[in-house]
Amino acid sequence: MENTNSLPEGKKFRVRKMELSDKSKGFMELLRQLTVCDSVSDKEFEDRFKEISMYGDDHVICVIEDEISGKIVASGSVFIEKKFLRNCGKVGHIEDVVVDAGARGMQLGKKVVEFLADHARSMGCYKVILNCSDENKVFYEKCGFKQKEIQMVKYFV
Amino acid sequence: MENTNSLPEGKKFRVRKMELSDKSKGFMELLRQLTVCDSVSDKEFEDRFKEISMYGDDHVICVIEDEISGKIVASGSVFIEKKFLRNCGKVGHIEDVVVDAGARGMQLGKKVVEFLADHARSMGCYKVILNCSDENKVFYEKCGFKQKEIQMVKYFV
Repeated sequence: MENTNSLPEGKKFRVRKMELSDKSKGFMELLRQLTVCDSVSDKEFEDRFKEISMYGDDHVICVIEDEISGKIVASGSVFIEKKFLRNCGKVGHIEDVVVDAGARGMQLGKKVVEFLADHARSMGCYKVILNCSDENKVFYEKCGFKQKEIQMVKYFV
Repeated sequence: MENTNSLPEGKKFRVRKMELSDKSKGFMELLRQLTVCDSVSDKEFEDRFKEISMYGDDHVICVIEDEISGKIVASGSVFIEKKFLRNCGKVGHIEDVVVDAGARGMQLGKKVVEFLADHARSMGCYKVILNCSDENKVFYEKCGFKQKEIQMVKYFV
């Protein structure tokens, strides 16, 4: 079951854009599987949701809802960067792709990445990029990505 | 001269935010040293400038102007990504850092990166990230960055 493309019996998932009500469906608990993610108040969550929504199609968060449990089991985001180079081109940046530990092996991560890449393409991006660990490289290759550069980081806190 | 921190005799540079009039000061010719960068019309340039300006402090382009020649000799951009994780944290993404081939060895690239990283920090980012080739790794280490992950890319065109 874990290695097939088809969904297990009785499973039903919906791939869609994130909604404000997803906080009560385990969205933050899902992100916590990715990195440090303290609990935020409903007000903080709503404020951040509104800030991101202001960007419209330039910043989209995809979620997959398990329609049986009502829980968010996968997520990822993409934002569209506007450049001057490449004939005033656009680049999609994929961030924070995560699949719930209990929902792996059902190609949900691939569905999230496809949703985000399709969005970037539909927005006119000439490419979509992301950063990942060495151990996730094979997964993204299966999604049609190739390794290009290295990521450098500077922490402030 | 090329390896010192001090500016050569008679040189004067100004580090500032990009302005619409920088198109006539060689901004696009500078970007062309970085990657494919076809010439764009004044109208296209102005439209893209306005689109980016709409993001205010969330998308800033830094330039360095040679005050003797009136030419833009270095540039780089940063945009601020708003997340839910890390207590609704923010991340600065640095892009398109370039120094004119005739203006290297005067720490102008470092000044651009510092300007962009300082901006990200002042906006409340917990980190700033960028992608670069292996050969530019040492330069970014001198700017206080460390290698973390790998960059994956998918081209649409």
